[in-house]
Amino acid sequence: MMRIAIVGAGALGLYYGSMLQRAGMEVHFLARRDFEAIRQSGLQVFSINGDFHLDRVAVHQRPESIGPVDLVLVGLKTFANRAMPELIQPLLGADTAILTLQNGLGNEDFLASCFGRDRILGGIAFLCSNRGEPGTVHHLGEGRIRLGEITPGLSDRAVRIAACFEKAGVPCDAVADLLRTRWEKLVWNIPFNGLCALTNRDVTELLADTGCRSLVRDIMTEVINGANSQELQNPINGKEFIQNMIEATDRMDHYQPSMMIDRQQQRPLELEAIYSIPLENARGKGVKMDRVEMLYRLLKLNEPR
Amino acid sequence: MMRIAIVGAGALGLYYGSMLQRAGMEVHFLARRDFEAIRQSGLQVFSINGDFHLDRVAVHQRPESIGPVDLVLVGLKTFANRAMPELIQPLLGADTAILTLQNGLGNEDFLASCFGRDRILGGIAFLCSNRGEPGTVHHLGEGRIRLGEITPGLSDRAVRIAACFEKAGVPCDAVADLLRTRWEKLVWNIPFNGLCALTNRDVTELLADTGCRSLVRDIMTEVINGANSQELQNPINGKEFIQNMIEATDRMDHYQPSMMIDRQQQRPLELEAIYSIPLENARGKGVKMDRVEMLYRLLKLNEPR
Repeated sequence: MMRIAIVGAGALGLYYGSMLQRAGMEVHFLARRDFEAIRQSGLQVFSINGDFHLDRVAVHQRPESIGPVDLVLVGLKTFANRAMPELIQPLLGADTAILTLQNGLGNEDFLASCFGRDRILGGIAFLCSNRGEPGTVHHLGEGRIRLGEITPGLSDRAVRIAACFEKAGVPCDAVADLLRTRWEKLVWNIPFNGLCALTNRDVTELLADTGCRSLVRDIMTEVINGANSQELQNPINGKEFIQNMIEATDRMDHYQPSMMIDRQQQRPLELEAIYSIPLENARGKGVKMDRVEMLYRLLKLNEPR
Repeated sequence: MMRIAIVGAGALGLYYGSMLQRAGMEVHFLARRDFEAIRQSGLQVFSINGDFHLDRVAVHQRPESIGPVDLVLVGLKTFANRAMPELIQPLLGADTAILTLQNGLGNEDFLASCFGRDRILGGIAFLCSNRGEPGTVHHLGEGRIRLGEITPGLSDRAVRIAACFEKAGVPCDAVADLLRTRWEKLVWNIPFNGLCALTNRDVTELLADTGCRSLVRDIMTEVINGANSQELQNPINGKEFIQNMIEATDRMDHYQPSMMIDRQQQRPLELEAIYSIPLENARGKGVKMDRVEMLYRLLKLNEPR
């Protein structure tokens, strides 16, 4: 049986961790805000697929009390990356894999620099979820994961981990081109996270406005140009991809992206992983993303220095 | 002696009207919000060049009580343009000239469509002023006017009107190329009005942020490309012009552009004159102003439909 540690028990970590535990895996949650609530009352998941409650949850304040696991699932906000080495080190055995489901670019590289490239996998989560009261999480829609190795190619390990998620009721694909997958997610994250945070409007309000709907398309086009300048195995077909992504977002009923909620609650935003590194990587290949850069600058203006 | 009517007694109309009256011209103010205060207590000007008070001010609620004048000075917000025909008609004699100091593009054309091209002059005001309590106006800096005829060329009439302003202590040039002058002003208005309104930061805060300072430059560059695609008599020298404009703005101590104040007070913004028409005119000449369009769309999202 797989032993799994969840590092970063936010909306994403709590949801996937709960699903994995419900399917019989041994899951350990490293929690801060929710520690006391989970210890006392377990974990409550409100989900569009049916609510459920986990009565007995292994929740920890420090990684030392978990010890080595088979898989570390990282769901920390990227601005908390500095804290990662000491949170993860005690969880590592000889064969421990580390899977980051964090947003944006740069996370696998950072983890690789701390723990070596061999351990690291990355994935992206198409998940609409928000935290609720301590000890609760709201699953509002989607949930699919795509994960893969840093270096191109499909590994047994990635396939095995994907099977765990599938077994837990989380649609999950192992992919041969993680970089492409990451950029695909950016095509959504860059316009919606930023514009919703900047304007304090949800995705439905944004898309209902003709001008902003066009702006979303224009930004997506820029990101796809940026993506296709990288070393992807296959380029992204812009027109079709954008169409699908807008239609999927039209089906999200007044969803508030995490960055919008972070801004409302005056928490720092994940600007480096979602904007700064992608801008830099595109620029490195001679591709300018003017609107993305403008959005980044406008978001950064209101960040704490 | 020149008989002058001020239509639109906001920060701009009150300031220039007061200066002209102090210099001995016969000035009539058409006022709404400030009517009662001015009628009772006259007009108070707080100015960086020295405060002054006008005890007896000819203030009117309706244009009929003013009757024909030599010069109509229009300072209305452009979104109030629809009200103009009936405000101005009663002020017209055979030789009455109409000078609009409104922001952006399209105002002379609108007035020309109402009253014929011959009567119309346009000008731009480099003025930092805000309304205060009713019956007061704050002159915070600058004040220079550049005015000219709709059709290229320097007219005696423009020179004569400019001399009136000069006599009143308002630096004023008659210009042969009004269109260029209007676009020059847009190079300032488009970035600063919009970005300050969108972010609720004043010009000093905006320029203190490295990213936004670059953004201002990038937007200015787009506007200058738009300007130089029009039929200007001489193109604008982008690099030098931007440098001067940024330096001038650095000297404005925490100035809040009118659009920022309008947004704070939830008044409509002058988006058509400052964004929509310039975008359209540039597009008509094959020039795209992507960042300007993005700013326009973001501003429009929060406007009343």
